[in-house]
Amino acid sequence: CLGLDPDPASVGGDLAAPSSGASEAAAEAVLSFCVDLIDRAGPHCVAVKPQLACFERLGWQGFRVLELICRHAQQAGLLVIADGKRGDVPVSAKAYAEALTDGIDSPFGRIPGLGADAFTVNPFTGRDSIEPFVARAESSGCGVFALVRTSNPGAADIQDLDAGGSPVFEHVAAMVDGFGERLESADGLLTGMGAVAGATEPGHLGRLRDLMPRSIFLIPGVGAQGGRPEDLGPAFRPGRAGAIVTASRSIANDPDPPAAAERLRETLWQVSEGPDQNI
Amino acid sequence: CLGLDPDPASVGGDLAAPSSGASEAAAEAVLSFCVDLIDRAGPHCVAVKPQLACFERLGWQGFRVLELICRHAQQAGLLVIADGKRGDVPVSAKAYAEALTDGIDSPFGRIPGLGADAFTVNPFTGRDSIEPFVARAESSGCGVFALVRTSNPGAADIQDLDAGGSPVFEHVAAMVDGFGERLESADGLLTGMGAVAGATEPGHLGRLRDLMPRSIFLIPGVGAQGGRPEDLGPAFRPGRAGAIVTASRSIANDPDPPAAAERLRETLWQVSEGPDQNI
Repeated sequence: CLGLDPDPASVGGDLAAPSSGASEAAAEAVLSFCVDLIDRAGPHCVAVKPQLACFERLGWQGFRVLELICRHAQQAGLLVIADGKRGDVPVSAKAYAEALTDGIDSPFGRIPGLGADAFTVNPFTGRDSIEPFVARAESSGCGVFALVRTSNPGAADIQDLDAGGSPVFEHVAAMVDGFGERLESADGLLTGMGAVAGATEPGHLGRLRDLMPRSIFLIPGVGAQGGRPEDLGPAFRPGRAGAIVTASRSIANDPDPPAAAERLRETLWQVSEGPDQNI
Repeated sequence: CLGLDPDPASVGGDLAAPSSGASEAAAEAVLSFCVDLIDRAGPHCVAVKPQLACFERLGWQGFRVLELICRHAQQAGLLVIADGKRGDVPVSAKAYAEALTDGIDSPFGRIPGLGADAFTVNPFTGRDSIEPFVARAESSGCGVFALVRTSNPGAADIQDLDAGGSPVFEHVAAMVDGFGERLESADGLLTGMGAVAGATEPGHLGRLRDLMPRSIFLIPGVGAQGGRPEDLGPAFRPGRAGAIVTASRSIANDPDPPAAAERLRETLWQVSEGPDQNI
């Protein structure tokens, strides 16, 4: 999965003092950068993952180009995983789910949403706050990735606390697994109720796979954050469709992004080999 | 604190088929609704709290009017608490903090942020993911409210797990308190490193006050969610500036929003009375 974390400091573009203002000029440069990256590295990927923070910091102009970038990726045959790690009490979670997927009917007419194929959520507010995301994913055919064990060192502070003999993140994993049936694939082998599990602690992946046997894993943390794709085999235990490995800086900042994406793809193809490889 | 959770289904406005599209028309109606609510109920409040989800579901047009609404509230003398409950690994947390506060310098010129006076964050990703928010709050003079114990029933699922003899939310409270010194007031009596603590479990408030003696509490859950302002006394133990109680639907949906805000203010004035009331 091609991560899109554009930084206006390094996207290039026309720096001539724009009459339209810095936000507009930066957003246009980010649009060109992402479209070019999708056109070049996209054929080696199955999805793109825009980091919403990077677009929000460009103001509403950033949101405008994010919508265009998502359409471009989907027209290129890629899935869009909107990475906003949203989480809130049920009434607000429902609004986030509407924003990220296919929008809402209103007295003013249909208000379209971002149209993502999947999105990331934060489970800290509990089961009833995940429910509106799952309900929306059911009705619009999307996937949900809940944070379970993240890739940063600070993940240990809360997620690894021992709660009754197992770490907090295993309780989250059980919660995620409990929603699995709602977003099950037709063959029952996988579920779109997925989990974010960092590549930087590969030792956790086997245990998480035991706890969530059918969940698709979204795995950040390879490349710039230090995770090694060679260590990710256990995440693919249900088959090659069982995990999506995402890389941002290590592809975008490579002198040859398509080659960087292809190297990662080939490594993952090897480590994901197993008896169920055709799933 | 006046919560702004506008729903296009109930904001009124001109429903005549707009040439500019449903998103634009809904955003304009939300803008008028919020400006009117701020003008009427604002004089009885100290802050507004826009729920970012409600603006995001209007697309980039929603973000555009959110910026205008924040400016209007600040010009009316109100603080803006951007309620997005953001949380992510450090590099992305930094981008969110930039987006919510005073923006970034870029090769294209200064890109302004939302300009909020405070914002809410989710602590699930740990200390290093809170750090960029605190660093930004220090440099831009903002406040941070971390979720500690939320107001929804599902809060119990993760936040109340027993971790070594104390619930997870008390570990979060200790983490929040650890950042307190960084955002301390000049007199050392309060800190802008605050906590979100729901009004629906008032029994927790006294314990949270012990664990975070100087943190400003942001308290949702009164009114529509069932919390009673009469029960919130312990949150104000350091003095009347020690807590901000936020109400959205119970003010906006009242036939007389200014009267509803004033009733809440008067009740809080009584329950917050104590020896340190002038802080």
